[in-house]
Amino acid sequence: MQGEIIAIGNELTSGRISNTTSGFAARHLYEAGYEIYAINTIGDSAALIGEALKRAISRVDFVLVTGGLGSTDDDLTTEAVSKALDRPTIPNLELLSQIRNHLDTISASPLNPLEKLAWLPQGAEALTLHSQMSGYQLIHDNKPIFFLPGVPYQMQMLLLEQVIPRLATLNQGRQLTTCQRMYKIFGMAEAEINRQIVKLALNHNIHIGYYPVFPEVHLSLTVRAHKGSDPVPLFEAACQTIEKNLGQAIYGSDNDSMASVTGQLLHGANLHLATAESCTGGLIGQLLTQVPGSSRYYLGGVIAYADSMKTEYLDVSEELLANHGAVSREVAEAMADGMRTRCNADITLAVTGIAGPDGGTIEKPVGTVYISLATKITIETHHFHFAGNRQQIQEITAKTALDLARHYLLQQDGI
Amino acid sequence: MQGEIIAIGNELTSGRISNTTSGFAARHLYEAGYEIYAINTIGDSAALIGEALKRAISRVDFVLVTGGLGSTDDDLTTEAVSKALDRPTIPNLELLSQIRNHLDTISASPLNPLEKLAWLPQGAEALTLHSQMSGYQLIHDNKPIFFLPGVPYQMQMLLLEQVIPRLATLNQGRQLTTCQRMYKIFGMAEAEINRQIVKLALNHNIHIGYYPVFPEVHLSLTVRAHKGSDPVPLFEAACQTIEKNLGQAIYGSDNDSMASVTGQLLHGANLHLATAESCTGGLIGQLLTQVPGSSRYYLGGVIAYADSMKTEYLDVSEELLANHGAVSREVAEAMADGMRTRCNADITLAVTGIAGPDGGTIEKPVGTVYISLATKITIETHHFHFAGNRQQIQEITAKTALDLARHYLLQQDGI
Repeated sequence: MQGEIIAIGNELTSGRISNTTSGFAARHLYEAGYEIYAINTIGDSAALIGEALKRAISRVDFVLVTGGLGSTDDDLTTEAVSKALDRPTIPNLELLSQIRNHLDTISASPLNPLEKLAWLPQGAEALTLHSQMSGYQLIHDNKPIFFLPGVPYQMQMLLLEQVIPRLATLNQGRQLTTCQRMYKIFGMAEAEINRQIVKLALNHNIHIGYYPVFPEVHLSLTVRAHKGSDPVPLFEAACQTIEKNLGQAIYGSDNDSMASVTGQLLHGANLHLATAESCTGGLIGQLLTQVPGSSRYYLGGVIAYADSMKTEYLDVSEELLANHGAVSREVAEAMADGMRTRCNADITLAVTGIAGPDGGTIEKPVGTVYISLATKITIETHHFHFAGNRQQIQEITAKTALDLARHYLLQQDGI
Repeated sequence: MQGEIIAIGNELTSGRISNTTSGFAARHLYEAGYEIYAINTIGDSAALIGEALKRAISRVDFVLVTGGLGSTDDDLTTEAVSKALDRPTIPNLELLSQIRNHLDTISASPLNPLEKLAWLPQGAEALTLHSQMSGYQLIHDNKPIFFLPGVPYQMQMLLLEQVIPRLATLNQGRQLTTCQRMYKIFGMAEAEINRQIVKLALNHNIHIGYYPVFPEVHLSLTVRAHKGSDPVPLFEAACQTIEKNLGQAIYGSDNDSMASVTGQLLHGANLHLATAESCTGGLIGQLLTQVPGSSRYYLGGVIAYADSMKTEYLDVSEELLANHGAVSREVAEAMADGMRTRCNADITLAVTGIAGPDGGTIEKPVGTVYISLATKITIETHHFHFAGNRQQIQEITAKTALDLARHYLLQQDGI
């Protein structure tokens, strides 16, 4: 079953907003077993909307339209649908009453443009009765068409809670069986990964995709049922080959992040981590605390951006700073050690480096980074020279630090 | 002059990679004065590529095609172009020799698939002679068509260095004059912004777009030259109206970020900021240090995620934590005060809250946040209840904290 996505908005065709909703929809539809034939991004023009919609209905099994459903004058989707599919708009009374109730509470004028949201093309079924969010379904030429708002979180919610379940109901028994896994890899280049698993790609039922997501590489493995056969045995064999050949360069899969995986290892070993960050400015802490429940293993840390902070909070001596410079092996070690001693963490990560664009020298160019990992009994320091812009150097530094902790914890585990 | 973008790749239609290149191209082309009629994202299928290309050539003035130019079997763009436009592929000898030189240095086999990159459709002109990056231009039916790689940094480089200058040469004297500004707004809802500037939208030469970028609202103002007239006076009058009516809710424009604007104010006043973060886990520091040169005004801070960190590094007493709980007005104040005293900052921001999904109670539900701003002479604490998921609560908390500092600094400035 093939679908097509139409995203509407001048903000998208002018590049002022990056179109994240289409990618989100494509990913979730693909994972649910549907193929996306094309994604069309067009401006707020009723003629273009109508044309794209009619072409899509003629060539695929279902259509998802996002954007242009709001209450302002540049929201033209419903008007365009009405014209293109010859379905006059009529008010959805339940929706209208919801909107009027809402307007009463904010004492708006009775001619509030929000009422526009209640007028739907004939035959449309509302996907939500929320007074400030629109979305409806239309069956036209026996094909379901879903209209969702362009606001990402509203669109995402309606896609997951309404569109995908409705498609599954309409589509019972016709779905392809697909096995898919996204491997997440750190510290191994795409070409090297390819070399390690090159034989897998010889089997035409196995599809492997490489996606560099700086500073990681994500590798997707897809096995689809061939002529009704069970794809699971082939999928599992391919997984085994990938996991064996890439080893610990694979840090996780699917919804894992470097921070969530490192966190699970810490939690499993009942260890507590603290961070002392200079050039990453809090990014390591932020990655760790994005994960719900991270307080079980992350104590917190110090953002020692200025040298005075390294002295005051991490007990790095002024002599050490003067003799070796803030970006040095000695200072990274002192930061990790000072942090660990004071807050009594089991493991500390400390980073110091030059993220640029200024501050580089011939001896220590932009991208020079030292990362220390300290425990109660050991301290190890690594020296890197990363390439990239400021943000990339901060990102690769933060993820490399977490990866060093991951490898340390795997070793302790005897894995 | 109108263009169309065609982005090619199964990784895009399956949503495994989000299509950032099309948005980048649309934005830069729009800023250079071109309108984008449509952005098409299609899979690796020669038939679809040919169909999309022919349709685009028939309806716009230039076409930009990205992706599918690599050396592997799923890269089908050149083959599709050759078929659709009836132009056999022939080797570009200069390119071929570059590739062979490169292959010599890595001692690859003579049948290396990289040589595929040197075969271009008849009439094509190479945009680069780099041995590992492809890109070419074709003039077909008098319309320029640009083929760029899908790898974002390669595509971006060739777009800026080759495509836009070439279009300008082809297009001399025909360009629209466009004035455009993106206002960045925090703390005012879209509907309220709309109410404040509703009269502007009555002028059909003024185009206003609203873009909610959580937790901010971005407002684009566009004035295009009408029948050869100068758009500047109307643009400047519209800017004045917007700036007067929205006041300090506008924090900046175009490339400003909340952190860069707050940083400029700090730097201008020669003040130094420190942060004490609990629920944001380092995000405030990370936003500040993303800005180059932030060491001139940001000292650093403490990520006091665990209560023991609040005691050890911020001198928050155990009694205070026991009596009021870590998420309380009293603890936020003590964090800000403790931080400021120890590191001798001019201004300190402290945040404590419940980002969820767990940890909420009836008295203090998820989204409860306290933010304190302390200086040498004052301390103010604000209580919020934010809605959203964990990441959204962390983001709105961090930006609200920076916004409080911004308002404080504007007041000091007597603005």
